[in-house]
Amino acid sequence: MKKNNPLLALTMGDPAGVGPEIIAGAWKSFFLLKGGSGSDHACRPVVFGSSEIIRRAVELRNTGEDVISISSLSELDDDYFIRFGEKTIPCFDCCPKTTLEWFKESCARNSGLPEPKIDPRCGDAAFICLNRAIDFALSGQISAIVTGPLHKKSLNLAGHHYPGHTEILAERCGIDDFAMMLYLGAQPSLASPTGLAVVHTTLHTAMKNVFDQITEDAVVARSHLIAGFMKKIMGSDPKIGVCALNCHNGEEGLFGDEEIRIIRPAVERAKKEGLNIAGPYPSDTLMLDAKKGFYDGIVAMYHDQGHIAVKLLDMHHAVNITLGLPIIRTSVAHGTAFDRAWKGIAEITSMIEAVRVAMILSRHSD
Amino acid sequence: MKKNNPLLALTMGDPAGVGPEIIAGAWKSFFLLKGGSGSDHACRPVVFGSSEIIRRAVELRNTGEDVISISSLSELDDDYFIRFGEKTIPCFDCCPKTTLEWFKESCARNSGLPEPKIDPRCGDAAFICLNRAIDFALSGQISAIVTGPLHKKSLNLAGHHYPGHTEILAERCGIDDFAMMLYLGAQPSLASPTGLAVVHTTLHTAMKNVFDQITEDAVVARSHLIAGFMKKIMGSDPKIGVCALNCHNGEEGLFGDEEIRIIRPAVERAKKEGLNIAGPYPSDTLMLDAKKGFYDGIVAMYHDQGHIAVKLLDMHHAVNITLGLPIIRTSVAHGTAFDRAWKGIAEITSMIEAVRVAMILSRHSD
Repeated sequence: MKKNNPLLALTMGDPAGVGPEIIAGAWKSFFLLKGGSGSDHACRPVVFGSSEIIRRAVELRNTGEDVISISSLSELDDDYFIRFGEKTIPCFDCCPKTTLEWFKESCARNSGLPEPKIDPRCGDAAFICLNRAIDFALSGQISAIVTGPLHKKSLNLAGHHYPGHTEILAERCGIDDFAMMLYLGAQPSLASPTGLAVVHTTLHTAMKNVFDQITEDAVVARSHLIAGFMKKIMGSDPKIGVCALNCHNGEEGLFGDEEIRIIRPAVERAKKEGLNIAGPYPSDTLMLDAKKGFYDGIVAMYHDQGHIAVKLLDMHHAVNITLGLPIIRTSVAHGTAFDRAWKGIAEITSMIEAVRVAMILSRHSD
Repeated sequence: MKKNNPLLALTMGDPAGVGPEIIAGAWKSFFLLKGGSGSDHACRPVVFGSSEIIRRAVELRNTGEDVISISSLSELDDDYFIRFGEKTIPCFDCCPKTTLEWFKESCARNSGLPEPKIDPRCGDAAFICLNRAIDFALSGQISAIVTGPLHKKSLNLAGHHYPGHTEILAERCGIDDFAMMLYLGAQPSLASPTGLAVVHTTLHTAMKNVFDQITEDAVVARSHLIAGFMKKIMGSDPKIGVCALNCHNGEEGLFGDEEIRIIRPAVERAKKEGLNIAGPYPSDTLMLDAKKGFYDGIVAMYHDQGHIAVKLLDMHHAVNITLGLPIIRTSVAHGTAFDRAWKGIAEITSMIEAVRVAMILSRHSD
């Protein structure tokens, strides 16, 4: 596996969503990420999905690539990309037959384009393509997985009972201690030229369960994960800020004692373990300070605390990264966007960013 | 009480904080809010605090106003403002003597400027000046109170055990069902030309207590309060969006059932009661939709949910408004900012906005 020209699996996600068309729309940009085309490709992307569906997405976006079905990843060496370059999308066909039947039926009903709707056959496709990519990542045949969005309802209707990608990946990798991080690269809404990462101590759970899940160990572990990530991005030690759980940082115990009992000791421990870290601070002012560039990474206590900030700062640039896995996984930070899917208008920036970050992480992996 | 030229009490807040200098710095702008100076003043501002301290703030900002100590509000008629115009700051002196002693001591130690530090004598001043303003508001002698920031620790050290202004006001007015709202006027970060309001269903409390405090009645009451406020601002019926408590809107009960049990029924009831209201929606996407102008008001479930969004959208323009009181109260949305206080650099926009909103609300009051 060449680390300087990593092979990246791009999963199509839910075929009724924006996944296929953002892959098609972003394709040429993957080759501009560093050094342009030719023998110096910065990455070798390959789609895990359906060549038939991707082909329809290429037609829709009018981007002109040929879509080639491949049966073995070993075809995708440097020579392949030199010969076929950014003008060809290699697709490892792994969609179930039932999904292709859905695609035909749906297109027939809808003037040649699939209907952006919940369907278990689409959830099944997203699940199976992801699992094929995980197989190859675990065996070391690909460097990273970049996932297109799936729809949780379609996934669950297909009998796959997971809240999202992250939990599927964690289970397949046999990992309990994983974390979801959002990363925003350099952009006008942020003062820092190396962007901002936000990691979540608790994730897909009821707010009522958050209190049991916020432990000193969890906060320390998240702090190390995000510091390690940002060090790869920055090339130097990042400054990490840790959110309070309660408003006003708990106001010295008046509005909750998790800061005193758990979060403050966790920050002290992480500091002793060598991190450049501070907190806990009230989350509203900490997010503003992060925007101003005073922090490179933020440890959030729960899902919405991090997500409100990142989405307001710049939804389109955000990349979703699962930390703590033995494999590299990045993702677009948005969902299937059924309201905009298969209209040829879906925003591609997050997909380009997800590939860029996967490429950087692949180069830094052991 | 003339509603078209309302008398507004501007409380100085904690004198060690930025309150005095933002009043001084913003003074002339109050008279530009509508119609300029002369007989057509849009509002008649009067400071509740210490003329001596305000005078020092005027010197610091070099804004040139005379500061006149007044002993009766009846002096402050239209003629007063025509004669003295924006060049004079009338101050109703109501600081305790101990605070003036602090001011002298602190200035003597610190080259003539007070030290921005926690001190019970400053917390006491903020409390007493606020209470004098409340007296006049309750008796109808002033139209509204615009509060400068206080410091909770100084307040509590002075023996006044409240989390902040809002709770003092509610207690003095004998009100249980009040709400804190943040309002952002028109500005580049928002698509809507009439701004965005965010009201909090629960406020200064531990996250653990939020679950008991989020009730159907509370959500419905907040919805009516924010709709009433935005109707005054807009002159037409606003569109209100309601946040979920749990991430992903509770994912149909998978991540918590407060949406199903409480928030959704509350939204349905508010709709039946005539509001243009929708939700609950995941708070991260709802805040983004509000930024895009799809909503005029947002009902948040807890403090940080609203505050993260408003502070990231534009901290400096935000105004804090207490809804549900029999009197009108607006405030700057920032704190005492000891790190920047008494340097002559404190940002005045929030104070100007707080006065503007107090003026609008005064005109619409019964």
